[in-house]
Amino acid sequence: MHDHHQEEHLGSSEFITDIVIGMSDGLTVPFALAAGLSGAVSTNDIVVTAGIAEIVAGSIAMGLGGYLAGRTEIEHYDSELKREYDEVERVPEREKQEVKEVFAEYGLSPHLQDEIAEELSKNKEKWVNFMMKFELGLEKPDPNRATKSAITIGVAYIIGGLIPLSPYFFTSNPISGLQYSCIATLVCLFVFGYFKSKVTGQPPVFGAFKVTAIGAVAAAAAFFVAKLLE
Amino acid sequence: MHDHHQEEHLGSSEFITDIVIGMSDGLTVPFALAAGLSGAVSTNDIVVTAGIAEIVAGSIAMGLGGYLAGRTEIEHYDSELKREYDEVERVPEREKQEVKEVFAEYGLSPHLQDEIAEELSKNKEKWVNFMMKFELGLEKPDPNRATKSAITIGVAYIIGGLIPLSPYFFTSNPISGLQYSCIATLVCLFVFGYFKSKVTGQPPVFGAFKVTAIGAVAAAAAFFVAKLLE
Repeated sequence: MHDHHQEEHLGSSEFITDIVIGMSDGLTVPFALAAGLSGAVSTNDIVVTAGIAEIVAGSIAMGLGGYLAGRTEIEHYDSELKREYDEVERVPEREKQEVKEVFAEYGLSPHLQDEIAEELSKNKEKWVNFMMKFELGLEKPDPNRATKSAITIGVAYIIGGLIPLSPYFFTSNPISGLQYSCIATLVCLFVFGYFKSKVTGQPPVFGAFKVTAIGAVAAAAAFFVAKLLE
Repeated sequence: MHDHHQEEHLGSSEFITDIVIGMSDGLTVPFALAAGLSGAVSTNDIVVTAGIAEIVAGSIAMGLGGYLAGRTEIEHYDSELKREYDEVERVPEREKQEVKEVFAEYGLSPHLQDEIAEELSKNKEKWVNFMMKFELGLEKPDPNRATKSAITIGVAYIIGGLIPLSPYFFTSNPISGLQYSCIATLVCLFVFGYFKSKVTGQPPVFGAFKVTAIGAVAAAAAFFVAKLLE
């Protein structure tokens, strides 16, 4: 019951975490890129073109990268699962020994270690699941999660990236665009940092400042480095 | 012994994983950004400025972001650890019940569940460590890892990003720069994809193609979207 509740909670917050990850990265990198270019070029259209190219590149790299990472996790789990089933079949005594070692580490008596290993070995499926989680530390990944996660992160990155970029559509020069971009982006970074910290159970205001600071440092560094190159 | 060996193995591959993460992202996003701009601007210096600004922004966002994520993980672990110590002190019976529930899930008999809970509760430190790992699924994070990881990923991103960008230093126009950039970057993505897959235990050649494909798709998409904006 307790476990089930916790998993549900994690499930819904994973979706929110994906949004926040995509959006705060989408806010940070295009913001810093646009800021960097604003110090080095004289027209808004270069900033806009570079910004859009970055958003396309970043959302594909993060989304597709996240998708493939998720697929890899599933394949890794499945191949380890197959190996464990194979091992409890072929070398049951060695696998029992591994169960005992898990509990020896927590100071349980040898007598109790034996009993646990014996009882576990009566049900192969549960035995294998036990080994997956307690020996290898692997949780069964949700097979739909990779796709959902990729789409969520990619779309959030695009939306996040359009926030720092949009002022350049409406202003007449990059420095004026940069001013509005700073205001809009830093406010959004603060809000997303707040929610990100809430979701991960951290002090939200402190977390909001951290996320905002990363964006501000990245943008300032990009601005000054690009200025040096002029 | 077995466990110890596994942890050592993970430790060294985490460093390599950080290099590969930073470098393959550093290769992908600046490559795609430069490709996008190559289709839209007529001089190399804009591509170079935007590329450098992106590398600065991306390395700070990834490095600092990774550092803060690592710190958050440590703080989260420490606060949960404190809570578990508090709970075994205040409500030991409820905590014993939670131990039993962990084993009920794997089909162990109630009699054995009781015995495990009793023995575990004799040593508070081991009991708490057990709860951290098996109830909450939390592993003790390495306190130095956050800093090391941040520096490794950030530096690898910079080195990775300079590979797609360097052809634009030596060529006379963006399209010619793009041609050399494609060759250099796709070869490097393939090599890093190969090692990335080796490290994560996946089929290396297939993995190499996947990583290369993400880079190629991101670059092609950025190129065509930027062309549309012209």
